[in-house]
Amino acid sequence: RVNGDRLWDSLMDMAKIGPGIAGGNNRQTLTDSDAEGRSLFKTWCDEAGLTIGVDRMGTMFATRPGTDPDALPVYVGSHLDTQPTGGKYDGVLGVLAGLEVVRTMNDLGIKTKHPIVVTNWTNEEGARFAPAMLASGVFAGVHSLDFAYNRRDPEGNLFGDELKRIGWVGDEEVGARKMHAYFEYHIEQGPILEAEEKQIGVVTHCQGLWWLEFTLTGKEAHTGSTPMNMRVNAGLAMSRILEMVQGVAMGEQPGAVGGVGQVFFSPNSRNVLPGKVVFTVDIRSPDKAKLDRMRAKIEAEAPGICNALGVGCSIEAIGHFAPVTFDEKLVTSVRSAAERLGYSHMNLISGAGHDACWAAKVAPATMVMCPCVGGLSHNEAEEISKEWATAGADVLFHAVVETAEI
Amino acid sequence: RVNGDRLWDSLMDMAKIGPGIAGGNNRQTLTDSDAEGRSLFKTWCDEAGLTIGVDRMGTMFATRPGTDPDALPVYVGSHLDTQPTGGKYDGVLGVLAGLEVVRTMNDLGIKTKHPIVVTNWTNEEGARFAPAMLASGVFAGVHSLDFAYNRRDPEGNLFGDELKRIGWVGDEEVGARKMHAYFEYHIEQGPILEAEEKQIGVVTHCQGLWWLEFTLTGKEAHTGSTPMNMRVNAGLAMSRILEMVQGVAMGEQPGAVGGVGQVFFSPNSRNVLPGKVVFTVDIRSPDKAKLDRMRAKIEAEAPGICNALGVGCSIEAIGHFAPVTFDEKLVTSVRSAAERLGYSHMNLISGAGHDACWAAKVAPATMVMCPCVGGLSHNEAEEISKEWATAGADVLFHAVVETAEI
Ligand SMILES: NC(=O)NCCC(=O)O
Ligand SMILES: NC(=O)NCCC(=O)O
Repeated sequence: RVNGDRLWDSLMDMAKIGPGIAGGNNRQTLTDSDAEGRSLFKTWCDEAGLTIGVDRMGTMFATRPGTDPDALPVYVGSHLDTQPTGGKYDGVLGVLAGLEVVRTMNDLGIKTKHPIVVTNWTNEEGARFAPAMLASGVFAGVHSLDFAYNRRDPEGNLFGDELKRIGWVGDEEVGARKMHAYFEYHIEQGPILEAEEKQIGVVTHCQGLWWLEFTLTGKEAHTGSTPMNMRVNAGLAMSRILEMVQGVAMGEQPGAVGGVGQVFFSPNSRNVLPGKVVFTVDIRSPDKAKLDRMRAKIEAEAPGICNALGVGCSIEAIGHFAPVTFDEKLVTSVRSAAERLGYSHMNLISGAGHDACWAAKVAPATMVMCPCVGGLSHNEAEEISKEWATAGADVLFHAVVETAEI
Repeated sequence: RVNGDRLWDSLMDMAKIGPGIAGGNNRQTLTDSDAEGRSLFKTWCDEAGLTIGVDRMGTMFATRPGTDPDALPVYVGSHLDTQPTGGKYDGVLGVLAGLEVVRTMNDLGIKTKHPIVVTNWTNEEGARFAPAMLASGVFAGVHSLDFAYNRRDPEGNLFGDELKRIGWVGDEEVGARKMHAYFEYHIEQGPILEAEEKQIGVVTHCQGLWWLEFTLTGKEAHTGSTPMNMRVNAGLAMSRILEMVQGVAMGEQPGAVGGVGQVFFSPNSRNVLPGKVVFTVDIRSPDKAKLDRMRAKIEAEAPGICNALGVGCSIEAIGHFAPVTFDEKLVTSVRSAAERLGYSHMNLISGAGHDACWAAKVAPATMVMCPCVGGLSHNEAEEISKEWATAGADVLFHAVVETAEI
């Protein structure tokens, strides 16, 4: 079993970097806080005797050697970046539990045939630079390095420039590494495990996603002196599209979600009707047909809504992953580990996207989940217990060691 | 008649300060550009032999003495501040036409019994600091100086600090000046004069306004892993309120408008349902009963919309002025001047709020308007012709000289 206290202490130490405003974290990717978090993680890896490699996307790979020089490594990781008002566990738990697996192997003098590589993927959240899971996406060949370097944050900064600025452009070619297996441990970010009173989620699938960025063009005009019938009101069109998206998602229940987290009005002045409204629709489903049908419905209905108001409408798909089925053998190793350790468990479909979804394209992959209080995540109040964190890390430890072969 | 070329040249010179991104201006109140604009105006006033006084709100009063030491001054002015993506004429025309009236009087050697005071009111737009017409509001005793100094811009800067920073805190007590009359010349900002092919709007009334700032409290949560029935979706509630406001305004046609220009999502991340949405509803009508009924309807319906989604709803009235009736004698002097000069004219109700609305509380006041292309304002593409600008300035000149008595 792992050392739960040590894992928890590391989580709390990392949470001191990039503190939020309400007990959580704001350690967005490629900020100074991200750089500070990376340094702390590197120090811990050095202390555990790991060798760190960094690729051109800034992803960190900390290797514990195996006994067979020809054996491909077992990767275990997640991400240290957070949402602007994020929690202390989303992503961080997976990276630090990977470290805890290695620390425990060191404590117990366990040697494995396959090397173990603890991984910190760059820009999983996609909060600052869309899309999410950017570095693992390049790793899996889904995006080009050039595409990634040219992503912009809302202030217009380029991903490539910011990666250089914080000093984490590595020299490894992205995706050159080959994996024997990839494991990711994560908080559920949803309500099911807690409601079902299970300690472990055996993650069999991940739902797919589309991010549709809308740019609505209205006519900037005075809110007071512009008669109702002369308005080209992009804000009103946005409202109607939000309501329509809600309807489309409700029409596909169960097994579908849809909503909007980000809206920019321009010029965003109280007495100016917006000339431009930009917002991103986030739709997801574990069922590919349903996911694509939702997208099609939204793209079919939005232009009519806009036309009726004279508003221009352009839609760009800025994020996408198809639903994922995880590797059966690895899923079984997670389930057996939970059994063996006496932890209650159930099968789960991940509601959120994870680096494991892209890793699954190039290697056998799976995930382990623990509950989180109220299913709450992407919120500074995100919370888990030390016992929950430890149970999942124990399962991760067993599954990783089994897969890496003693 | 005034010198239309000189007026136009001054307008174009002022427009060079705080250029926008599309041919208009971004010279928001209490920015460095505002300070630069004030300096240029001061230079012109000095050249015209005017004496400048500044009050504690930063409002500039440039005086041309009268012949009777006991006669109260005739004020003529507007504002030099703009929207973030504003036009070159909104406000600026009124201040520089006031200056042109004085320059013309100098050219013609006209002496008046009453002094003439060309006025540049601080923060008319209300774009950076709500409410609009802030300095004239303090002048008229509607707001306290303390209230004004404690207004905050979206970055959290205080009005009082910013006024000090740009070096324009004057020593005059706000509102201590007494006025014989107040004239304001402004572009219409609406489509009526152009449609009716009239050169001059004789402004008899100004419609009233309520700005209702909504703060909706949802629950920040993951857009992917939060099931539809567990969402507390403040963004959806905002959408429904925008639609409701549209309905309320349409239900009061004609003679009413309602819309939303400013929306802030928090944390405004693509994969986080907003925990907080703040936006401002702007409703207006020349009919006080209608205006207050719209507010009552909106305030009655919004809580139900929010309750149905579990969203918290608080509403604060952050801006208000009642409909205004301008001074009959001054209105008549404007109409007679247009007649005398042979300009086509019609009565008009101002759709926008103006400093004249507050001045009307403490002095006889009225306005002159000229058309603007397509009724467009609060848009960098705002446009007028030199001929339109000149016609209104001629009318202003005649009405001011008549009221100031030769
Ligand atoms: N796990 C997680 O929150 N990832 C961010 C990408 C997503 O929105 O699913
Ligand atoms: N004239 C003008 O645009 N004033 C700003 C205040 C308002 O919104 O009416």
